[in-house]
Amino acid sequence: MGRVTVRRPVLRLRDGAASRRPDALAAEEPMEIRVDGRALTVTMRTPGDDFDLAVGFLVSEGVIAAAEDVRSVRYCAGATADGSNTYNVVDVQLAPGVPRPDASLERNFYTTSSCGLCGKASLDAVRTTARWTVADDPLRMGPEVLAALPERLRRAQRVFDRTGGLHAAGLFSAEGDLLCLREDVGRHNAVDKVVGYASQAGLLPLRGTALMVSGRASFELVQKAVMAGIPLLAAVSAPSSLAADLADEQGLTLVGFLRGASMNVYTGAERVVTE
Amino acid sequence: MGRVTVRRPVLRLRDGAASRRPDALAAEEPMEIRVDGRALTVTMRTPGDDFDLAVGFLVSEGVIAAAEDVRSVRYCAGATADGSNTYNVVDVQLAPGVPRPDASLERNFYTTSSCGLCGKASLDAVRTTARWTVADDPLRMGPEVLAALPERLRRAQRVFDRTGGLHAAGLFSAEGDLLCLREDVGRHNAVDKVVGYASQAGLLPLRGTALMVSGRASFELVQKAVMAGIPLLAAVSAPSSLAADLADEQGLTLVGFLRGASMNVYTGAERVVTE
Repeated sequence: MGRVTVRRPVLRLRDGAASRRPDALAAEEPMEIRVDGRALTVTMRTPGDDFDLAVGFLVSEGVIAAAEDVRSVRYCAGATADGSNTYNVVDVQLAPGVPRPDASLERNFYTTSSCGLCGKASLDAVRTTARWTVADDPLRMGPEVLAALPERLRRAQRVFDRTGGLHAAGLFSAEGDLLCLREDVGRHNAVDKVVGYASQAGLLPLRGTALMVSGRASFELVQKAVMAGIPLLAAVSAPSSLAADLADEQGLTLVGFLRGASMNVYTGAERVVTE
Repeated sequence: MGRVTVRRPVLRLRDGAASRRPDALAAEEPMEIRVDGRALTVTMRTPGDDFDLAVGFLVSEGVIAAAEDVRSVRYCAGATADGSNTYNVVDVQLAPGVPRPDASLERNFYTTSSCGLCGKASLDAVRTTARWTVADDPLRMGPEVLAALPERLRRAQRVFDRTGGLHAAGLFSAEGDLLCLREDVGRHNAVDKVVGYASQAGLLPLRGTALMVSGRASFELVQKAVMAGIPLLAAVSAPSSLAADLADEQGLTLVGFLRGASMNVYTGAERVVTE
């Protein structure tokens, strides 16, 4: 595809000195996800790993939960007036017997609850949709293993090095080995890409693994971890209140402000073994 | 409301030493925006300035463009089964004669183009929806004025100081005075809150002003600046390719990596006066 970065001229100002030079920017384009030919959502994403993104999104939303739930994934040609392929429309054909998502998914996962909008309803929506629990996952991960994750994630980020502008999501083993890394202008997309990779590889639920993300931990990211069966989510920055609430209810370990040997454990501290 | 932060116990690990203490997390709850009683979208946001958020969202999406376009804004009671008010559903009543948004808005602004999904279609959607142009805005802002914005934004961020977890958007005068600051777990919400404030104050289009955001500059943020008539957008981190493309086409000045006297000017450099 070759659209992960785009070069542009930029005027650099450094302490009063100005210079012109080309700069690499992280690419951003819309992508529409269709299910059996019907449009479900559009996300602004960085092109690349598009099939992972589409499949991972459907796992996050509870539409599918295994590789066998998907019959095929393809780019749609003919989405434009001239019939050309923009590589920005991905259609996921579900396997026979897999229920199609209902129309309310078009709006948002956490709106499917009709009982009124509040934090509790959002938690309920995840509980009733999740196919498995992470509460009983025996993962243990010591602080010294956790401490090494940010640097490993950072080193593996190829596009970030060129643009400074991409979020990353990394899937790690209990020993801290990087199993899968994905980058995107949107943090939620980077996570969906990781989950979609794992789903297509037949690895769901991702028991015994940890997910590390750049930036903050929102409700949505905890939701995605739960839906993929990942028992530990670590973030470089702060979690939100609802992220911690959901992690608490689901028995997921939530680590924030993970910066080397310094970290905050918000929920599920029993998995972070300290002697 | 008092829900901007939520206290939770946290296990702090610092170089092998563990301690328990309460920690303040940025609150996150879903909010549904309705127009004349009809649900339009749901966003995960930090409670507070909810009317600003609802009105600003409608400006960003091209539904309204002036204070007179709105008849009233209110919280909906009765959205829950027991009839209680969650303060998470906001209804905006449009003034007579203002066309209601069409259903496609439920999905996303940049999907309203039916000609196929690509970066160009996204640019076209903004061009055909914007009520005014920023290209002719005579704003001039020297590097020394720009250099002072991040520190001013940071100092004004009250909730960030407590949680480390909120994005900020600040509206500044040409002289670098802070006119309005809003915080949110979502950067796009923080910007909508600023725009909504300005709309309700009768200040649109925001000619001669600059918008500064924490984090990155995406297509969506440039879109929101254009829709509010703001001629300059500055971000602490990197812009995406499509953000720069849209800024270029619309004649908006886009500044990235603004960190003190160091900054990159991607488009509209003529507004950044250098001697």
